[in-house]
Amino acid sequence: MERITSTKNEYIKLLRSLKQKKGREETGLFLAEGDKCAAEALSNAKVQALLTTQEQHLLAIQAEQKSARVICVSQAVMEAVSDVKTPQSAIAVVQKQQGKLPEQGIFVALEDVADPQNVGTILRTADAVGAAGVLLSGKCADYTSPKAVRAAMGSIFHLPVEVAEDFQGRLSALKQAGVRLLGGHLRGTEAMPGRQENLCVIIGNEARGMSESAARLCDYLVKIPIYGKAESLNAAVAAGILLYRCKEGR
Amino acid sequence: MERITSTKNEYIKLLRSLKQKKGREETGLFLAEGDKCAAEALSNAKVQALLTTQEQHLLAIQAEQKSARVICVSQAVMEAVSDVKTPQSAIAVVQKQQGKLPEQGIFVALEDVADPQNVGTILRTADAVGAAGVLLSGKCADYTSPKAVRAAMGSIFHLPVEVAEDFQGRLSALKQAGVRLLGGHLRGTEAMPGRQENLCVIIGNEARGMSESAARLCDYLVKIPIYGKAESLNAAVAAGILLYRCKEGR
Repeated sequence: MERITSTKNEYIKLLRSLKQKKGREETGLFLAEGDKCAAEALSNAKVQALLTTQEQHLLAIQAEQKSARVICVSQAVMEAVSDVKTPQSAIAVVQKQQGKLPEQGIFVALEDVADPQNVGTILRTADAVGAAGVLLSGKCADYTSPKAVRAAMGSIFHLPVEVAEDFQGRLSALKQAGVRLLGGHLRGTEAMPGRQENLCVIIGNEARGMSESAARLCDYLVKIPIYGKAESLNAAVAAGILLYRCKEGR
Repeated sequence: MERITSTKNEYIKLLRSLKQKKGREETGLFLAEGDKCAAEALSNAKVQALLTTQEQHLLAIQAEQKSARVICVSQAVMEAVSDVKTPQSAIAVVQKQQGKLPEQGIFVALEDVADPQNVGTILRTADAVGAAGVLLSGKCADYTSPKAVRAAMGSIFHLPVEVAEDFQGRLSALKQAGVRLLGGHLRGTEAMPGRQENLCVIIGNEARGMSESAARLCDYLVKIPIYGKAESLNAAVAAGILLYRCKEGR
């Protein structure tokens, strides 16, 4: 087992750079923090290394079987790499892979959703509802940022996530394949289309909502009714309500 | 109009202390950041002062009518007081008031929900669904923290929020008054009780869920079905799904 106790070690410096988008883009790596999330990464993704503060960590065997480096680090190193104040005992260094959506099932598509916590929370909800995949426009918050990974609670490793620079092109392709598009939209109707097997729920930017051109692609525009004085719902809450309605047809 | 350009001014030092819970508890004050939130505060709460970087801010007249101090501050002062990197042009200094729940309607009760963003987002959803009020256990994240206020998007000023040290005593009192208690619980049934006029949705701590003793008080324990591989839903998403189901009876 390797040991690293210096925060100035070259590999640790590289891992510290993964807090920023630039570092993740340059290396194609991101971090899965915490024992549970690291375990999910080891089971479902390509893991380059497992950092742990414990001599004999339960995940070390699994990591070695997967030919990942197992690195025992000091508490100071763990704190330097971690995005949280009190890190758990394990962090997995994960190789980012471009996901590819299948052509059938329930999907979520996010157009320029800017808050990483919303992106991560929606990934978690998409997983909970048994979605076939998640489509992100290129201007969404990076779903591999520490905040998004943390909010996704391991779900990031459970379903394909595809980032599309040509977001509307991908929506059109889904539509061609028989997937109905349902947009959450303030000008939509309050009635849901009923249960659908092949449906993509589209959620727009937190402040601006969905673009006009994406709205025009939609088969349905749906508005969640507001009964009180709030102007709108949080994007992740709206996504959760719409996804469960579509899944359960109510 | 007062002017303050030094971040070391005594009042500015006091406002800077409001980022911490201690400062808010000692003063009974909290901050409503951003033009929209400050406007909501001016319309619906007791505002001690309005800070603005603009000589002639639209909200200044309203603030003066409400006998609030209007203080024109430098950008440096605004940044020192603000919780965000790029503050907007106005912050309201609000006097905290203990809310008191009415005895009828839809309620949300949060037991030890620890993430301020979840607390704020649930306040926003409660407002959207037209809830009569929100009950928070004493161990919930402070709903007047900058993160919670930001997530609530002004809804904090739209409905009564009551913090109860004797959380279960308050739940029992609601129950006595004829309000049914519905807990989100992993051991619950997946069927909803149907539309209810007087109902309190209870959401437990993000990691531990609801306490056994709170669960025993409930008339209904409901589990949102998980169709995929996620273990659970985010607390604010779960609250949103349950609240809309209860409101709409579906």
